[in-house]
Amino acid sequence: MIQAGIIGGAGYTAGELIRILWRHPGLNLNFIYSTSQTGMPVTKIHQDLLGETNLQFSGEINSDIDVVFLCLGHGNSIKFLEENYFSETTKIVDLSTDYRMSDEGHMFVYGLPESKKEQIKKANFIANPGCFATAITLAILPLASEKLLKDDVHINAVTGATGAGTSLSETTHFTWRDNNFSAYKAFEHQHLAEINQSMKNLQPEFSSALNFIPNRGNFSRGIHCTAYTNFSGSLEEAQELYKNYYNDAAFTFVVEEEVHLKQVVNTNKCLIRLQKFGDKLLITSVLDNLLKGASGQAVHNMNLMFGFEEDMGLRLKANYF
Amino acid sequence: MIQAGIIGGAGYTAGELIRILWRHPGLNLNFIYSTSQTGMPVTKIHQDLLGETNLQFSGEINSDIDVVFLCLGHGNSIKFLEENYFSETTKIVDLSTDYRMSDEGHMFVYGLPESKKEQIKKANFIANPGCFATAITLAILPLASEKLLKDDVHINAVTGATGAGTSLSETTHFTWRDNNFSAYKAFEHQHLAEINQSMKNLQPEFSSALNFIPNRGNFSRGIHCTAYTNFSGSLEEAQELYKNYYNDAAFTFVVEEEVHLKQVVNTNKCLIRLQKFGDKLLITSVLDNLLKGASGQAVHNMNLMFGFEEDMGLRLKANYF
Amino acid sequence: MIQAGIIGGAGYTAGELIRILWRHPGLNLNFIYSTSQTGMPVTKIHQDLLGETNLQFSGEINSDIDVVFLCLGHGNSIKFLEENYFSETTKIVDLSTDYRMSDEGHMFVYGLPESKKEQIKKANFIANPGCFATAITLAILPLASEKLLKDDVHINAVTGATGAGTSLSETTHFTWRDNNFSAYKAFEHQHLAEINQSMKNLQPEFSSALNFIPNRGNFSRGIHCTAYTNFSGSLEEAQELYKNYYNDAAFTFVVEEEVHLKQVVNTNKCLIRLQKFGDKLLITSVLDNLLKGASGQAVHNMNLMFGFEEDMGLRLKANYF
Amino acid sequence: MIQAGIIGGAGYTAGELIRILWRHPGLNLNFIYSTSQTGMPVTKIHQDLLGETNLQFSGEINSDIDVVFLCLGHGNSIKFLEENYFSETTKIVDLSTDYRMSDEGHMFVYGLPESKKEQIKKANFIANPGCFATAITLAILPLASEKLLKDDVHINAVTGATGAGTSLSETTHFTWRDNNFSAYKAFEHQHLAEINQSMKNLQPEFSSALNFIPNRGNFSRGIHCTAYTNFSGSLEEAQELYKNYYNDAAFTFVVEEEVHLKQVVNTNKCLIRLQKFGDKLLITSVLDNLLKGASGQAVHNMNLMFGFEEDMGLRLKANYF
Repeated sequence: MIQAGIIGGAGYTAGELIRILWRHPGLNLNFIYSTSQTGMPVTKIHQDLLGETNLQFSGEINSDIDVVFLCLGHGNSIKFLEENYFSETTKIVDLSTDYRMSDEGHMFVYGLPESKKEQIKKANFIANPGCFATAITLAILPLASEKLLKDDVHINAVTGATGAGTSLSETTHFTWRDNNFSAYKAFEHQHLAEINQSMKNLQPEFSSALNFIPNRGNFSRGIHCTAYTNFSGSLEEAQELYKNYYNDAAFTFVVEEEVHLKQVVNTNKCLIRLQKFGDKLLITSVLDNLLKGASGQAVHNMNLMFGFEEDMGLRLKANYF
Repeated sequence: MIQAGIIGGAGYTAGELIRILWRHPGLNLNFIYSTSQTGMPVTKIHQDLLGETNLQFSGEINSDIDVVFLCLGHGNSIKFLEENYFSETTKIVDLSTDYRMSDEGHMFVYGLPESKKEQIKKANFIANPGCFATAITLAILPLASEKLLKDDVHINAVTGATGAGTSLSETTHFTWRDNNFSAYKAFEHQHLAEINQSMKNLQPEFSSALNFIPNRGNFSRGIHCTAYTNFSGSLEEAQELYKNYYNDAAFTFVVEEEVHLKQVVNTNKCLIRLQKFGDKLLITSVLDNLLKGASGQAVHNMNLMFGFEEDMGLRLKANYF
Repeated sequence: MIQAGIIGGAGYTAGELIRILWRHPGLNLNFIYSTSQTGMPVTKIHQDLLGETNLQFSGEINSDIDVVFLCLGHGNSIKFLEENYFSETTKIVDLSTDYRMSDEGHMFVYGLPESKKEQIKKANFIANPGCFATAITLAILPLASEKLLKDDVHINAVTGATGAGTSLSETTHFTWRDNNFSAYKAFEHQHLAEINQSMKNLQPEFSSALNFIPNRGNFSRGIHCTAYTNFSGSLEEAQELYKNYYNDAAFTFVVEEEVHLKQVVNTNKCLIRLQKFGDKLLITSVLDNLLKGASGQAVHNMNLMFGFEEDMGLRLKANYF
Repeated sequence: MIQAGIIGGAGYTAGELIRILWRHPGLNLNFIYSTSQTGMPVTKIHQDLLGETNLQFSGEINSDIDVVFLCLGHGNSIKFLEENYFSETTKIVDLSTDYRMSDEGHMFVYGLPESKKEQIKKANFIANPGCFATAITLAILPLASEKLLKDDVHINAVTGATGAGTSLSETTHFTWRDNNFSAYKAFEHQHLAEINQSMKNLQPEFSSALNFIPNRGNFSRGIHCTAYTNFSGSLEEAQELYKNYYNDAAFTFVVEEEVHLKQVVNTNKCLIRLQKFGDKLLITSVLDNLLKGASGQAVHNMNLMFGFEEDMGLRLKANYF
């Protein structure tokens, strides 16, 4: 049993980590560090665990730990690691944006198992991808892997209210969000940088635009993404390319059925569907923003780093309805 | 054209008043006073009016006005009227709880048109009923009018998220409220006092309990209320009693169909259905908490005070879907 | 008072027409023809009218009528008009797709008041536009009017469950639709033909693609549409162009605020917002699919044909919450 | 590994069984019998399993099986067992109402583990309780166990749309159910019989009324139940009684926090909260109607019958948001 800690235990991604790690057979949840909730039972915030656990939020960090997950606000992971010390053997999975861009100044590996499984297995530090970034990157990665991204990609995606974090705001107030829909941060979403980085790693000359319009949906969990671009091959060729590329992926599946959010919510899966219209290849991808788009992927990365089965702790029952 | 003012313009009930009064043919909306939004366009908050009006929130009160609506937090109307002056002919409709309990110290009439139409017509000051109070009182008022409330009444009602006001809170956060349900303030809701007062006005010896469990529903608008008590008559007798009692009501209708929220949301109506099971009479009432339960009823009261047709400005198209 | 009839009274668009026409001050609702509901009260289906009307569905058509609205399934209006006779002075508003494409064989005018107000005023027969077609056409019409559509337009729009009609189906079942999202009919939606026709009327050489991905949202009413294309001018130039073009539009407004569905649901309005990113102009439009996208626009067309004020019967209170 | 079969594989409860049993470590899912879907992949209906399984619905029944779950419509289990044969050692869990009432004519044990754990362990045939029956029975069972049910019990509960089954109907159409609420089958719900039976088993002289009003909520999963009755003891005494009664329950927990649906949806748990107001004890219980109210409880019963750990296969991650 490896020993695990969570830094920043009160938010959505920490909650999902606790729900998964609490049942993970290869791991003991050693501490959940929260400055705002020190000493409180974990069930005060993550109330679905009522009756199951008497874990408490801790005000102290155990630095002699096998793995630590950082669930801090964007910008705070760097600061936290400057101010806190872990043992030399402690592996770190950071769920913030802080280390997603490659840089000589850090040794974090971008933790998208579909493209970097071998590197992740050997890594000590993982920058866990963003939720939109995961949905979009998985939709176009096989094209980049064959250097087939030759034109602009037109992307429209919608995310649930958990995508906005736990803080109270007008656009997450029930009376605003219920039965509503709106676009935001068009063409300028912060995840575009990491998506572009992934594309250029595989197809260095890629210089087309990723035109991305994110939207706020009136649901709690899930990302639905459509992306289209020119593709000269047939639908069958596209399907062969994608199925080969994701052949050994543990959670990403290319399907021929229509895809929708309920197929993936509360699972760690990403489903991808391909369609061809004239010269255009339309790729639709769906995933749960808090699992495959955050905490589930973080556990997947940890499983790879520690040599566990890839889906250990992640054989999750979908909510479906 | 009478001149009207609104005090406290940024909340839900003020917004509904503006939506109604803006189109009311007998009235000019003279000012909307808001200390928090002074000088801002009304459409900054009430965005459905975009394109229709360039009204602004005002930091000044016109005291020489025909009617003023107080949309202040509970407890603040008394304070406001102590500190501010209106002309002798200004009529006041207060939407808070402050004047709902009869008291020698004030001259406010409880503004439930179904029971006090003639008093309202002559009144200068109206205490507009609470939303749950309206739904529950209308459900049992005909029984009290015939002194037939002889046993405990068992009441369960559910309200939408607008019932909790505009302030941000955990239980109005979308990720909490969406697809959720919970009870609160069981047996102790603050509206019980005004309901009891209305019952005792009609049936002075009434001394049974009103057992009331309020609930939070995952919708924005509407109250659905079931109430049952012993009733020795037949269903037909109950229907005759109710239909007679509400015979000249402008907005309250006794129907034989199953009732549900969508029949009344975005209207000023209250629908009431009666059923009999053994000795028990079950009364189901539905209304829109912001209209019949607040701002629509306030306009109805104003129409009565100024001799307008009862439904002027209130022939509202339901949303229905 | 003109006399009006509705053919096909049980569906969503007929229901909305009844709700509007019932309160329309210039018109008497003479009959509502329904073969499936003959003799039944209108409130059996349109239950929000309970207490207000005892209108019944009729099995007979009054052919001597001033205006008739056809609310039949697509393909059935042609058949109906072949088999039924109206007086020579009867004006017809058809809400189906049957007469939307110009053709020598019929005299229907495409009823988009923003582009054809003068023709509509003189018309006897109106083909009422489709809901997606209205949202998309209004988003790009000012560009076509100045022959500025020079590149592909990338369009993504989401509609509510009422867009699928009243019939029961898997994708309108609550347990499927609730908290779900999915794309459908990508690049092949039937409304593309009428949108292309409108563009070519204004900009005959237009030959770029309208790439349109429709989506199913988990709400009942509303269409949210984003469209972007290359535009060499500045944001200010685009806003001036749009504001001039819609200067005398009764229901379409160009705004600078973020737009969302709740601003327009249960109104006849269309709000349009412009943003510029690099060379791209992003246009976001929102409307209620059943009102501005169907029955509200039908009444607007009727108002124009009969010389009523454009917004008569259409000053609707938004639901907003 | 025991061999299991499911009869009637296309409905909600069968889907939940498949999701659980597919991951159950002590069991092999031998066949899923469906006459309507014979030969189709299970993922055609239960689409969240896409990518995980290529199981197919079968048209044949393997009668030499360790356990079979009947997921047939109410009334069809009796017929099915008359027409089909299983081996003498096959254990049966019936999810319909057919065998819930004790009767000399059958040997089914009512499968509520909180009250009949030892009988279930020895049973071969289980009648799995109804969803409302489970929520209500668990709310008042400890009182009956001490013969403390002395007055009428007033019960109000709300269920999600999955409670109505998969068939398409007006009240499960999205445009009807979304943001709506309604009562149905007041005082006459079919589950009252089995609840009364459970009470009388423990408190034979129980003769008070169970006044039960069921409601339709606008969510997909979950039951929220409030029940109150006179109780002469203190809140502390009630809590001690309940905590003792449920001391060894695997999934039912008495908590002091406010309870709501999201704490239990997609888990097999039932949470119970007690409050005291005057003479009245208010009990609030919440559970997932498809899990603790159906398929999860069925698996729990199976675990007991085969000597598995009670929570095997049932350590489910809540959706929570």
